[in-house]
Order: sequence, then C-alpha cells, then structure tokens
Amino acid sequence: MIIDCHGHYTTAPKALEEWRKRQIASLATPASGPRASELRISDDELRESIESNQLKLMRQRGSDLTIFSPRASFMAHHIGDFDTSSTWAAICNELCHRVSRLFPEHFIGAAMLPQSPGVDPASCIPELQRCVREYGFVAINLNPDPSGGHWKEPPLTDRWWYPIYEQMVEYDIPAMVHVSTSCNACFHTTGAHYLNADTTAFMQCVTGELFKDFPTLKFVIPHGGGAVPYHWGRFRGLAQELKKPPLEEHVLKNIFFDTCVYHQPGIDLLIRVMPIENILFASEMIGAVRGIDPLTGHHYDDTKRYIEAAALDSAQRQQIYEANARRVYPRLNVRLPL
Amino acid sequence: MIIDCHGHYTTAPKALEEWRKRQIASLATPASGPRASELRISDDELRESIESNQLKLMRQRGSDLTIFSPRASFMAHHIGDFDTSSTWAAICNELCHRVSRLFPEHFIGAAMLPQSPGVDPASCIPELQRCVREYGFVAINLNPDPSGGHWKEPPLTDRWWYPIYEQMVEYDIPAMVHVSTSCNACFHTTGAHYLNADTTAFMQCVTGELFKDFPTLKFVIPHGGGAVPYHWGRFRGLAQELKKPPLEEHVLKNIFFDTCVYHQPGIDLLIRVMPIENILFASEMIGAVRGIDPLTGHHYDDTKRYIEAAALDSAQRQQIYEANARRVYPRLNVRLPL
Repeated sequence: MIIDCHGHYTTAPKALEEWRKRQIASLATPASGPRASELRISDDELRESIESNQLKLMRQRGSDLTIFSPRASFMAHHIGDFDTSSTWAAICNELCHRVSRLFPEHFIGAAMLPQSPGVDPASCIPELQRCVREYGFVAINLNPDPSGGHWKEPPLTDRWWYPIYEQMVEYDIPAMVHVSTSCNACFHTTGAHYLNADTTAFMQCVTGELFKDFPTLKFVIPHGGGAVPYHWGRFRGLAQELKKPPLEEHVLKNIFFDTCVYHQPGIDLLIRVMPIENILFASEMIGAVRGIDPLTGHHYDDTKRYIEAAALDSAQRQQIYEANARRVYPRLNVRLPL
Repeated sequence: MIIDCHGHYTTAPKALEEWRKRQIASLATPASGPRASELRISDDELRESIESNQLKLMRQRGSDLTIFSPRASFMAHHIGDFDTSSTWAAICNELCHRVSRLFPEHFIGAAMLPQSPGVDPASCIPELQRCVREYGFVAINLNPDPSGGHWKEPPLTDRWWYPIYEQMVEYDIPAMVHVSTSCNACFHTTGAHYLNADTTAFMQCVTGELFKDFPTLKFVIPHGGGAVPYHWGRFRGLAQELKKPPLEEHVLKNIFFDTCVYHQPGIDLLIRVMPIENILFASEMIGAVRGIDPLTGHHYDDTKRYIEAAALDSAQRQQIYEANARRVYPRLNVRLPL
C-alpha cells in the first residue's frame, strides 16, 4: 500500500474561490459578506474535481491513499481576523471531509486550522476537535507564520503554541508544519517561503527543548525538509555548538520529512542522509509544480519514480510508502487495518 | 592554486567588538559615542589574529588565498542609522584591507556595505568605490535584508538596488548575497536566516528579469545556494510555470554557488546538479560551524576534503578551486597573474 502524506485540495470547484473572494471583499463589513450556507457544491462536482485530477494521477502513478488537506496557499491566515479564518477553515475542512467520504479508500483528511496573526492558538482547538472527532481526520497542518511572510509569531518551541500540542498529543495526531501564501514581496510563495519555513521550523526545534516537554509530539516537515537534509552536516555541527545531543536523539524521534523533492538527485540525498524511518512518501500532487520535466519526460511531482529508482531495498521502500506513515499518523490504522 | 571565495574576519581583536559595543550604547547620542580614531589595533595584533586562526587552518588544509570580508553576523545593518553603518563599515573594511596588506599572498578584500534599513542603496557607493579603488577589493557583500530578518526592502530585482548594480558592472565585481544577524526570534542566524536568504535571493532572480538589464552582473550565493541545489527540480519546474527560459540561460550565466556545505552528501549533490562552472570553492572558515564532525574526525567546514572525495576529475577540481573564481572575480587577476 502506498500512502501519500501530503496532498491538498487544489482543484476544488470554482464556487469555493468565488465564495472566498466575496468573504475578502466584505472584510470591513462581515455582516454583508457571504454566509457559509451560501456555498453550495454538489457531491457530483466534488467527485468530478477529484476523479479527473488527483485520483486520476494516483491511479496512473500507483499510489493508494492521500492524506488530504485544504489548499495550503489558500489558507491565507493573514487575511481578516479570527472569525474570517474560522469560517473559512470550517468550509475548507468540510469539503475535504466530504471528499474522504466519497472516496474513503483514497482520501483521509488533515485539518487546516483557523489561525490568525497574533491570536492565541488555543482558539483553534474547537475546529481541530471537530475534524478529529466528527470527520475522522488524522492530522493537522500547522502554520508557523500566519502573518504570511512577516514572521511575527513566536518560534514553534514557545509556550504560545502549547495548547495545540496538548491537544495533538491527546489525540495522537501529527502536525505538518506548512505555511501559506506569502504576502511579503521578498518571498515567492512556493519557491522561497515554503522552503524557508521548513528550514526555519526545523532549526527552531534544534534550538529549543520542545520534545522534552512533549516526548510524543510529531512534526512532519514537508518539501523534503526545506534545506535541512542538504545541509545536514551544518545542522549536526550547529547542534554540537549549541551543546545539544546528536540530532537523532534530540529531534529525529519527533520530526519526519516528506519526499516532495522533485528530482532524482534530491531524493537520493534525502535517502542517503536521513534515517529511513524518518522519511514519508509524498508528492504534494496536484500542487506547486505541475509540469513535465523535459529531462525525464515525467511530471516533476511524480515522486514515486524517484523512490523506485533510489538505492533502497523493498523493505525500506515499504517503510517509506506505508509503515512510517502508519507510525507517524496512528489514526490511519483505525480506518485502514493492517 | 586554491582560492576560498568566502572568508570573514571573525577573529578580529577584541578591541573591535568593544568599540562596536560603545557605538551601540551611544545610538541615541552619537556625539558622545566613540570616534573611529579611538579604535587602535596594531599590525602585530592583526597578524596574531590571522596567523593563529585562518592562516594556520589554510596552511593545514592547503588553500592559498581567501577572499576576505568583515564578519557577516557583525554587519548588523539593522542597528542604528546610515551614519552608524557608515562608520562601522569603514572600520571593518579597513581592517580587512590591513590584513590583505600584511598577508598579500593569502588574503584579498571584499567589502561590507554601509546598508541601513530603508536607506537608498546609492548611499553605499562611496564606501564601495573606496574599497575597490584604494584597497583593491575584488567584491562586495550585499545584504538583501538589512532589517535583520524582517525583510522590508524590495526584492533584489527591484530598481531600488540598481545604483549598486551599475557600480558593480562598471568595476566588474561580483556581489556575494549575504545577510547578517537575525533579530527576528523565528530565525536562527546561521541555521535558518542565512540559508533562507540564499534561497530567497535565488528565487527573486528566477522571478525577475534582472539579468536582462545587467547581462554581466554576477551574484555568488553562499552556503551552497541555500536550499536551491537540493530542490533543483522544483526550481526548474517553477521557472517553467513562470514561462521563463531554462535556468541555465535565465540565471546561471550570472549566479554562482559556493561550496559551504558541510558534509560529503551535500557536496556530492551540488556537483551532480550544478554545472561545474557555477561552483566556487569556499569554506567560510572560521565561521558558523567550527567543530569536528565525529563521523569523519575532521572539521565540518574543511570543505576541501569533500571536493577531493567527490566524483570530479582534476580539470573540474581546478575549475572549482581556481578558474571559476578568476572568471567571477576578474579583479583577482590584477593581483594574481595567471
């Protein structure tokens, strides 16, 4: 079985985007804005948006199940206030839930949180609880920078974030650390901000002692861990200067990397550097990089091809494809008995 | 000959730091602060600080010449105003110049600029001119984020920066794109901010058309290019989505990567992915990562060992060690005839 731990609903019917535009147009006068109930998307529309996109590619490429969350770049937590994000997150999560009910063998949900800059993360708990209890979601996406490229919240190791971690630990769900659209002109969203956030979050964990307070807390760092595996020697050396234990002990019981690295040399490095048990299969399909690589004739984001071609034995491949995901996302096993 | 294109004067005599502390303590009342002339460091002190540190390691490791600039983390352009930076840059550049005169075979200067947040980069031109004309410096360090982790300047492709580029092109000197200390708690300086800046600057160049306006402009992106080589497929794919030419045409005539990647797998990836003519030998010694790697028994930043062990023939190694640097830093050839 092949589990893709990183998929977003990037192909939702246009009505969703239209609703969001109306919400944004009414930020100053929310009462005149659209109500959640005004968004109407039929099951047929949902089916069509999935069958002709993600599911088609999953079948072509041979993956079975995608952990599916709302479109990352559309979370845009920097827009409006907590109420804006709260309504928007509820809508987006519900759509992912409906997709997972329509295609229960192929999609299972991960929640977007109703984060808002400067707002206590505890405000996200009710939506998180609803997604896990009512929708059977198996994870959350946690945005370390709801400001959208201005980085105004405290580091992830700060007690500011602890209410979310307490709930995660209670439910035994991991967080994928995933930012949203950059509204800072310096940072291209998918070409800089995403990768920077991955590197930043990892280094915050190296600097801090978060996993002493939460020994079972789990973070998935997407996009192959940003710059981390390529600079693994640098991070090992910095941890040493900071008098931390070796990274295997200090953070690798709690931090995992996905395989959203879109060329063979990158995947080969990831696999050479990181323990196999810390690598989770993912493609972020359909996402940031949708084209076909002229060097290979295949889609950049068809990451299964790179895993197949990498120097792995079949047991290691099975770990990356399935076993690690079941360990990091224990609630998967409720839906998918071994 | 082995040229290390990335060294900072991290070992300057304590008097420099003391002077800077007094300057910072007097920001509100600069008239009561220290004058530049109050900093007194003898040639013997300079010699000692270099011979027992950088030069000792250069001899041990077998590199010949270091392109030497003021300590990056101490540039701290976010502190004070233009006058603060101006005095500080002049002092730091002069010290590098004195080192290069004391050890003319081993050190040649690269200038720190007196940048200050929100201040027109044209204000940096006089210091730049002085360093090239009077000191024989061969490059500059350009900080894309003088705010120190808040990223408030426009992207490097914006006309805001053009006065510096015009002068660079006239002098035929490259800029190493190098940030300084992060004063944003989210970003560890050497474990996140530096790498993020490298990735960010590269993606700014991919998004923009800077090298159409300045076909001979050259940027060196340090720390192995941040996350870029590891995610080369992603960047190729994003350029394709942006309808840009292949990256080789679009940016690789103008952008070069150093080898400050502190483990063998990282260097192997860099060499596998990037054209050899875009790779410049560097170690950033003595810098961020000073320890000994327990896995190898050698210093993390002894990057020559990785180059020696990489799958390169001797002609390629000579390109990385010397020929590329002479091409990217043409003023080197004035001092060092072929």
